[in-house]
Amino acid sequence: MVIRPVKPVYIQSWGSVVGRKEYEGPLGELFDGYDTTDLFGADTFEKAESEMQKRALGLAVAKGGYLPEDIDLLFAGDLVNQCITSTYGLLSYRLPYIGLFGACSTAAEGLMLSALMTGSYTRRCANVTSSHYCTAERQFRFPLEYGGQRPPTAQWTVTGSGAFVCTSEKEDLHRTGFRYVPQITAVLPGIPVDGGINDANNMGAAMAPAAMDTLMRYFSENKSLDGIDLILTGDLGREGNGILADLLWSHGMDISSRLADCGKMIYRLDDKKTDVHAGGSGCGCSAVVLAADILENIRHGRLGKVLFLGTGALMNTMALYQGQNIPGIAHLVEISRSEVE
Amino acid sequence: MVIRPVKPVYIQSWGSVVGRKEYEGPLGELFDGYDTTDLFGADTFEKAESEMQKRALGLAVAKGGYLPEDIDLLFAGDLVNQCITSTYGLLSYRLPYIGLFGACSTAAEGLMLSALMTGSYTRRCANVTSSHYCTAERQFRFPLEYGGQRPPTAQWTVTGSGAFVCTSEKEDLHRTGFRYVPQITAVLPGIPVDGGINDANNMGAAMAPAAMDTLMRYFSENKSLDGIDLILTGDLGREGNGILADLLWSHGMDISSRLADCGKMIYRLDDKKTDVHAGGSGCGCSAVVLAADILENIRHGRLGKVLFLGTGALMNTMALYQGQNIPGIAHLVEISRSEVE
Repeated sequence: MVIRPVKPVYIQSWGSVVGRKEYEGPLGELFDGYDTTDLFGADTFEKAESEMQKRALGLAVAKGGYLPEDIDLLFAGDLVNQCITSTYGLLSYRLPYIGLFGACSTAAEGLMLSALMTGSYTRRCANVTSSHYCTAERQFRFPLEYGGQRPPTAQWTVTGSGAFVCTSEKEDLHRTGFRYVPQITAVLPGIPVDGGINDANNMGAAMAPAAMDTLMRYFSENKSLDGIDLILTGDLGREGNGILADLLWSHGMDISSRLADCGKMIYRLDDKKTDVHAGGSGCGCSAVVLAADILENIRHGRLGKVLFLGTGALMNTMALYQGQNIPGIAHLVEISRSEVE
Repeated sequence: MVIRPVKPVYIQSWGSVVGRKEYEGPLGELFDGYDTTDLFGADTFEKAESEMQKRALGLAVAKGGYLPEDIDLLFAGDLVNQCITSTYGLLSYRLPYIGLFGACSTAAEGLMLSALMTGSYTRRCANVTSSHYCTAERQFRFPLEYGGQRPPTAQWTVTGSGAFVCTSEKEDLHRTGFRYVPQITAVLPGIPVDGGINDANNMGAAMAPAAMDTLMRYFSENKSLDGIDLILTGDLGREGNGILADLLWSHGMDISSRLADCGKMIYRLDDKKTDVHAGGSGCGCSAVVLAADILENIRHGRLGKVLFLGTGALMNTMALYQGQNIPGIAHLVEISRSEVE
């Protein structure tokens, strides 16, 4: 069921930090911070990912006109085993902490819970997530030194972290001085869907049926596409995005012109030197594209209403060795442009 | 800050499933289900853990007088990399799903979010968690075949799964026919605390400072111990329980008589044949003890108010190899006996 926050909830501020490949991509100039070494001053890739989370949250808090203690509750998670890059990255903030695991859907999962909690119980919640090519690649696929061939459906894990601060305090909105603010007007939690895919190099196909399921449930309650400028999936990539467009078309919804995917937006897919095959993936992918591009466009009046669908593949390597398929999930966050009063 | 559900929220029902060692322990007869092979009909330990979750949720749903579709939202998580035992265990229920990672605090984390969501947005939420000695031991410590010595502070991962259904629908309470029902009257999310411990065989010491931090924050808002029958930690074990009692005593709170720990309750610690050293641990530990023992005692009028503190160690093995400490967390759920009207 589609759930609406009891009180109006606004995304007051956001922060994004990326690595070199993302900085060199088409959205490069939009991100708040980057490090072309991908290490962010740390001596391991896991610590580098933690450092990205720390910086992304720091930026989001500061850009909202806040200090860390203004945040009542923090939601975070990532792809590394036991979500350690979130724990260590956010430890020094000393904030009440709710750990999430939503695979690459974590940005949407965190926004969803932040919005509902802020709409009913807290003044402000923040949520953070991240991924790093080097931590994900060696944990899920191959050693970094290994030069294997990647099939065309494979995706490239984004090195990046995004953080968001939600508030229900209307006076907060005047701290930033913008005319518009993104408001979270509804959320719809995803249902895990097993589409029969067991190829870890084809995550897009594994997640597309979950995105379809969530969209169909959303449209069963909200019949009209009117006013929806964009349906933005997290990291279906070229393959999954095509499958979702086909599934929608086969249900009589020819809306591919309003369909976009963060995994397709973050890199230059047709540039062979970029070598990302079907596009970006990872928790950081949707987080940094939503923050740096989409929310800025809403704030500046260029976008009205966006359905943000965080897509995730709920698997690990051992499950595949044991013959399991890869279930997908897609959490929906309805974000609408609101005028600051 | 201590958060109270907007509407009254009741724990309508619960289910618990355990393995052989737990069934042979002092609470053995209280659990709803067990399998002395620890395999639950599955061909791998990970699949066995999934099967336990499936059964625990099925029992909780059925005991509450529900069908699965009566549940609006499901919270779940576990210790296995990327929380796969929750995903695969609960896939067939086809319910909206929020994945959590709270290490061994997951039962409390899930209850906390279930209570707040049920108190404001949904009719009913369920939460599930599990652990399995064989999945945890080989992932976090040694191959199962390896016969290493365990130090006295080491704990034994509980093979078990617990599930809980929260409702805000007062008429639901008549489905079970009991005079009393446990009500979640408040929650307090934990703050990760780094107590300087980096020994994976001494999780109790790593988590005790987090439990202390949460309790101190709770008592800073609720000054009195009056009416609190029990302060129940999740899996501090003998070592961590002793440290927490000492920390409380050093702050002028001599309450060791009201302090209990699920990790100490689930096994016969002084029976050398049981071989569990400092006691039980794992997500399943606090979940099954809370379900089978504590909530039943509240329901039958033998306990009034319980502070349930789910304790967790937010680490993985790689973090320790990289020289990190083990941060602990403790989420508090205030459970009070309520008379059914």
